[in-house]
Amino acid sequence: MPTFHVEMFEGRTVEQKRQFVEAITRTTCEVLGCGPESVDIIIADVKRENWATAGKLWSDD
Amino acid sequence: MPTFHVEMFEGRTVEQKRQFVEAITRTTCEVLGCGPESVDIIIADVKRENWATAGKLWSDD
Amino acid sequence: MPTFHVEMFEGRTVEQKRQFVEAITRTTCEVLGCGPESVDIIIADVKRENWATAGKLWSDD
Amino acid sequence: MPTFHVEMFEGRTVEQKRQFVEAITRTTCEVLGCGPESVDIIIADVKRENWATAGKLWSDD
Amino acid sequence: MPTFHVEMFEGRTVEQKRQFVEAITRTTCEVLGCGPESVDIIIADVKRENWATAGKLWSDD
Amino acid sequence: MPTFHVEMFEGRTVEQKRQFVEAITRTTCEVLGCGPESVDIIIADVKRENWATAGKLWSDD
Repeated sequence: MPTFHVEMFEGRTVEQKRQFVEAITRTTCEVLGCGPESVDIIIADVKRENWATAGKLWSDD
Repeated sequence: MPTFHVEMFEGRTVEQKRQFVEAITRTTCEVLGCGPESVDIIIADVKRENWATAGKLWSDD
Repeated sequence: MPTFHVEMFEGRTVEQKRQFVEAITRTTCEVLGCGPESVDIIIADVKRENWATAGKLWSDD
Repeated sequence: MPTFHVEMFEGRTVEQKRQFVEAITRTTCEVLGCGPESVDIIIADVKRENWATAGKLWSDD
Repeated sequence: MPTFHVEMFEGRTVEQKRQFVEAITRTTCEVLGCGPESVDIIIADVKRENWATAGKLWSDD
Repeated sequence: MPTFHVEMFEGRTVEQKRQFVEAITRTTCEVLGCGPESVDIIIADVKRENWATAGKLWSDD
């Protein structure tokens, strides 16, 4: 029953997300030996002004 | 101090959310024996293109 | 597809969790009109030394 | 490697977020003795209709 | 900067986790075109008494 | 109503957590202009075998 929450910068296309969830699910099933129907992936599109590393917003980069 | 994070597909009306948080809070207090002021609920409206089950985006269904 | 993450202080018995997930799922289905099999609930048992309100750990209360 | 997820009501300006992540990162490094590059902060802007306390949406206040 | 939170049932060995994070990171970099150093994965080992589907704890299965 | 979820490696003492939540709450109130009672901080102690960067578990470092 792996459930993924994935935070990434906004801007990915639906096609990129489609390939991403397909590949991550296949990889997960291969490595953990679970069925694809047990894998849920929820993506959060994060604005660069909402993510900071080392005290600096990525929108300021 | 239960704190809920609830992910659901976007598209619920404010009236549905109002009924939902009222009902979930009442149920929680009844079952766990806590006061309503200790219950926080945060809802995330998730796009169907951001949720996948079995390697397939729900927007592709 | 509502997915719940519920953070509560550790110490609940399995019987309390059993009643809690049963009741929350039933309430959710009634209010949102979804099937029970679409409701996932994940509970995190949080130690009082890991939760603070107003700058004070609950283990110090 | 502290990673922060901070949920706050929407409406903060980028300048407020800039000051916030700078100050939180500095405070974290001082207290925990870690390097700033190890601190990640992800902010979620939450609508008032998506947050409830005591069974009541904040948008109804 | 994808950051993964993965919830799975407890019981995986360190070797399984090692293979899992290696494979997920490689897949992510291939599909999204990012560098491996930008991928963080945090695993939560969830007890079966803390996960419910359809109103039933998995420990009751 | 800022609510913090902070993931850090396990091993911090209660005294370090006490200083951490006190300092983070004070900083948050100064920068965002909110009252301390509106700040909740939940800490997750993460094992090094449950956190990976660049495809490598921190327990393997």
